[in-house]
Amino acid sequence: MLPTIKWDHEKVIMIDQRKLPLDEVYLNLTSYEEVAEAIENMAIRGAPAIGVAAAFGIALGFSKIKNKNNFMEEFYKICQTFERTRPTARNLFWAIERMIIFFEQNKDLEYEELRKKIIDEALLIEKEDIETNKKIGYFGRELIKDGNTILTHCNAGALATAGFGTAVGVVKAAFNQGKKIMVYVDETRPFLQGARLTAWELKREGIPFVLITDNMAGWMMKQGKISLVIVGADRIAANGDTANKIGTYSLAVLAKEHNIPFYVAAPLSTIDFSLSDGNKIKIEMRDEKEILEINSVPIAPLGSRVENPAFDVTPAKYITAIITEKGIAKQPYQNSLKKLRNKDKK
Amino acid sequence: MLPTIKWDHEKVIMIDQRKLPLDEVYLNLTSYEEVAEAIENMAIRGAPAIGVAAAFGIALGFSKIKNKNNFMEEFYKICQTFERTRPTARNLFWAIERMIIFFEQNKDLEYEELRKKIIDEALLIEKEDIETNKKIGYFGRELIKDGNTILTHCNAGALATAGFGTAVGVVKAAFNQGKKIMVYVDETRPFLQGARLTAWELKREGIPFVLITDNMAGWMMKQGKISLVIVGADRIAANGDTANKIGTYSLAVLAKEHNIPFYVAAPLSTIDFSLSDGNKIKIEMRDEKEILEINSVPIAPLGSRVENPAFDVTPAKYITAIITEKGIAKQPYQNSLKKLRNKDKK
Repeated sequence: MLPTIKWDHEKVIMIDQRKLPLDEVYLNLTSYEEVAEAIENMAIRGAPAIGVAAAFGIALGFSKIKNKNNFMEEFYKICQTFERTRPTARNLFWAIERMIIFFEQNKDLEYEELRKKIIDEALLIEKEDIETNKKIGYFGRELIKDGNTILTHCNAGALATAGFGTAVGVVKAAFNQGKKIMVYVDETRPFLQGARLTAWELKREGIPFVLITDNMAGWMMKQGKISLVIVGADRIAANGDTANKIGTYSLAVLAKEHNIPFYVAAPLSTIDFSLSDGNKIKIEMRDEKEILEINSVPIAPLGSRVENPAFDVTPAKYITAIITEKGIAKQPYQNSLKKLRNKDKK
Repeated sequence: MLPTIKWDHEKVIMIDQRKLPLDEVYLNLTSYEEVAEAIENMAIRGAPAIGVAAAFGIALGFSKIKNKNNFMEEFYKICQTFERTRPTARNLFWAIERMIIFFEQNKDLEYEELRKKIIDEALLIEKEDIETNKKIGYFGRELIKDGNTILTHCNAGALATAGFGTAVGVVKAAFNQGKKIMVYVDETRPFLQGARLTAWELKREGIPFVLITDNMAGWMMKQGKISLVIVGADRIAANGDTANKIGTYSLAVLAKEHNIPFYVAAPLSTIDFSLSDGNKIKIEMRDEKEILEINSVPIAPLGSRVENPAFDVTPAKYITAIITEKGIAKQPYQNSLKKLRNKDKK
């Protein structure tokens, strides 16, 4: 299991994903503001991972409140800080909402007891995330056949979650079954999550992979080198429209043109049932420096204008199936996703 | 006019495109081997530009032959060196063939006279290339309407030719007509010709542009931000199938999905009438370092496997029109391209 993020008493420890794969540096964060900053600066990224980070951050912040007589106000202030970090990732808001509900249910307790309970709730979110990913892997691996070549984009692996991963978790689960597979890894400009993170994870796991630039994916499909595409998700609307790392939409269109299955792997906590479709998903725009510089060296003329949307939205019609921890949803997703959500509920 | 390449008596001078946009460094090449190396290392690139570079290189090599009694053997040795530099660019072979034909027609002359004539022929190729590009611009500009937003990939500008450019030449020609246009520039990994070269050219020309990563193009189309796509070409088969910088094929598929016109701009010297279709176009595979490192800093784990095809082939069915110096060809290209080739011939 990769050490994406850990709770360590009065600290949150996380691997600094900006430094990978060259350096394995761990951040020791001792205030909730530092955790929020780590999310915003993408020291940690991946929707499920930043959900866990926010839960830990809230627990850390609550744990260190100075004005214990007014902990309610302080609690909400902490939550608001995390709400402002990254707008698109559904799991971030899901985790904050869960912490708020838990807080509201227990706010009549003494501070010290509540503090312990809130930490336990954050740890539970972490534990459940790993279990959830393993279930996604269990269901998803059936979609991968022996000998398949799988294209993935960005990093939806252990580093994007508390552990194991979603899309890459499915790949690992198939690999662990003994299936002979190969992965094409999109480098994923501008942040290079594919080249830096997914390649690093697959190498550690011993899963064969080939790194390509994003613009090569279509040509690989054209040559018959890709059996299927599998990606993670940052927010899924009730109808299945999926926001994910920029470039995902292009891959979905290309997969359709080549009759290649296009799968999304994500926990149900990524689904935003309040949104009927993907048009209302807020797309985060990030700093132009992510495009204009690589390793702090300019790669374009000074003063060049850029657009830097961190995500795009893939309409449900391009998505062959959505793999969740409760099973695989197929079209029409309005029905299948709701059905999965209500499954096993009493 | 940008100074892509110049003949200067016993030297070939070219701007080192690997150093742009940070540094404007000119290479003074005094042997044909140096010119061949500059083509291979992509100090100069772009099919028409390397055609001119090869012509200059042959003239330079012939000009400095030591064993003047055996100049025929030496001449062919020089030509073979250039044939081995880059396999995909049709214009390179076109220029070499033209120099060989010229040599054969004049080989009975005295060495000194032949030497002068060969230099003049190389200079004529340079001159014709610029004229050709202006004609491509003249025909192509009619396809661009006032207010259009144009997506281009790689660099098919002045730097890819002796001057003015093909795809970017069309953009310039429309801009010079006073049309209000805006250009989306794909950064074009791995070599970043878009970010480094096209952005640099457009900035110098005062043409508004926005730089994006390659994987954003589809999302920009989805949002209705792209009116048309225009790219250059490295080799076009008789049926219109077009080899161009890797990523072109993906853009063509995306353009089709969004009902956006997809244009190729190239001189007739890019067309390989000996190839019935694009399947037999040899695709150059380049060094893995182009993907694994940026500015000599690794961006992926050591030992990662990569695939690095420099080009892909876009089937003719995705191409709305091919803009040449003799007019615009439409489908079916088997007929229209041949017709243009024979136009104005006696």
